[in-house]
Amino acid sequence: MRTEYRTKRKIEFADTDMAGIVHFSRFFVFMESAEHEFLRSLGTSVATEWNGDKIGWPRLAASCEYLHPLRFEDEVDILMWVSKKGTKSLTYQFCFTHQGKDIARGQFTTVCCVCNPGEKIRAIPIPDFISSLLLAEN
Amino acid sequence: MRTEYRTKRKIEFADTDMAGIVHFSRFFVFMESAEHEFLRSLGTSVATEWNGDKIGWPRLAASCEYLHPLRFEDEVDILMWVSKKGTKSLTYQFCFTHQGKDIARGQFTTVCCVCNPGEKIRAIPIPDFISSLLLAEN
Amino acid sequence: MRTEYRTKRKIEFADTDMAGIVHFSRFFVFMESAEHEFLRSLGTSVATEWNGDKIGWPRLAASCEYLHPLRFEDEVDILMWVSKKGTKSLTYQFCFTHQGKDIARGQFTTVCCVCNPGEKIRAIPIPDFISSLLLAEN
Amino acid sequence: MRTEYRTKRKIEFADTDMAGIVHFSRFFVFMESAEHEFLRSLGTSVATEWNGDKIGWPRLAASCEYLHPLRFEDEVDILMWVSKKGTKSLTYQFCFTHQGKDIARGQFTTVCCVCNPGEKIRAIPIPDFISSLLLAEN
Repeated sequence: MRTEYRTKRKIEFADTDMAGIVHFSRFFVFMESAEHEFLRSLGTSVATEWNGDKIGWPRLAASCEYLHPLRFEDEVDILMWVSKKGTKSLTYQFCFTHQGKDIARGQFTTVCCVCNPGEKIRAIPIPDFISSLLLAEN
Repeated sequence: MRTEYRTKRKIEFADTDMAGIVHFSRFFVFMESAEHEFLRSLGTSVATEWNGDKIGWPRLAASCEYLHPLRFEDEVDILMWVSKKGTKSLTYQFCFTHQGKDIARGQFTTVCCVCNPGEKIRAIPIPDFISSLLLAEN
Repeated sequence: MRTEYRTKRKIEFADTDMAGIVHFSRFFVFMESAEHEFLRSLGTSVATEWNGDKIGWPRLAASCEYLHPLRFEDEVDILMWVSKKGTKSLTYQFCFTHQGKDIARGQFTTVCCVCNPGEKIRAIPIPDFISSLLLAEN
Repeated sequence: MRTEYRTKRKIEFADTDMAGIVHFSRFFVFMESAEHEFLRSLGTSVATEWNGDKIGWPRLAASCEYLHPLRFEDEVDILMWVSKKGTKSLTYQFCFTHQGKDIARGQFTTVCCVCNPGEKIRAIPIPDFISSLLLAEN
């Protein structure tokens, strides 16, 4: 069992580079925006407050494999899921497909932190109101 | 008399789009980064504190005319100056040239604000430690 | 009479900067993407071929006035229309609103060009299959 | 023995996000720009022609680990080297440090391709005029 989510994204002109394809760094923005949509679909947000603290999710690691290029006006399908749920961190997997063809596979690991302005960022156990919404793959 | 500043910038791959030229939105980033270098050259920064308040400079208006395209690895020359110094706002002009050819001319107007986290942004008169560094064209 | 178009856009994390608001350069990307959606809604595209030539639309000028900031997860309403239809150029106007509040007003002028790879970009009269779809304000 | 290269980069306002730190996707742009500077330092470019073909380097995979955040106006040191030289591909490693502190470690693998406009992208053995410039770690 795992918590998964599907979304779509239309490739914009500013996503492309002079090679005529989507710039490889943009896939990380696409993954992040899918993550945020996913959290909203669960009734929460990546930017919440809890017990008076601002909760944020800095990234520990991110990676992507590129299989086929995406081009302007392509509508890409994104499937994502929670592949690992740690005490303080979450790992998400992402599959990008376009018209049935595999485009890219990515993942990132993100750690739950208190991010109050003017304070040092510090990791905390994922609050239960978020953790309880998520099933990781196993 | 006016306070002016010159800088250069090498066009990066991620600045380009599928038309093979620099995306028009990037010129606004280039102007902003020139502004920030300029402020550092005066011994200050766009992000300062003053009397315990965080000072920021939201933009009121920005514009650019595009004369010739820029391409990957071009080194563009940027000349900028303060064209108007108001009580609370500054207007900067920017000229982009490449190998003597006019590339673009832009400007923006930016307003001095207290930008404390959790408070509403509010405009203030430009503090004297900044204002005294700047001569506007006249 | 004018040809107008309405769309919406959800502000993404990567649209924001350390001031906690949408970076001013992003509004130009938002305008461009609205333009491209608009052209698709008419059954064409900003990137078409015509008589064996690649048609593109480099920008001549762009500007924006900023009235109120946008923040992460805001859904902004964009109203756009063709304000001027020249022989070779089009000017579009854009109004950004959020929950009824005016956020920004922008415009850009874009010129119809043959943009074949390896050739110099050259302006041409707007082909009739595009021009006939557009009514400019008057 | 390996071919390595060092460069620096000043963090710009547009590199940051509302968390007040550099957005994680920007590290991939920083790596790419370091790669391109490195190739220029060897007297070549990432965008060359060879035997009448346009040579490009699409990415196969990219990853980054994030150890400490970077902030506006930080000057980050980037050390990079060729960690693997295949027949058709290169893998680069990147270490980001700021004032002696480890910030991030990244890598990407990039494949040598003919990227002529209007043709399908196809991988080729790295031409000798590039390959001969590079020593991979071993």
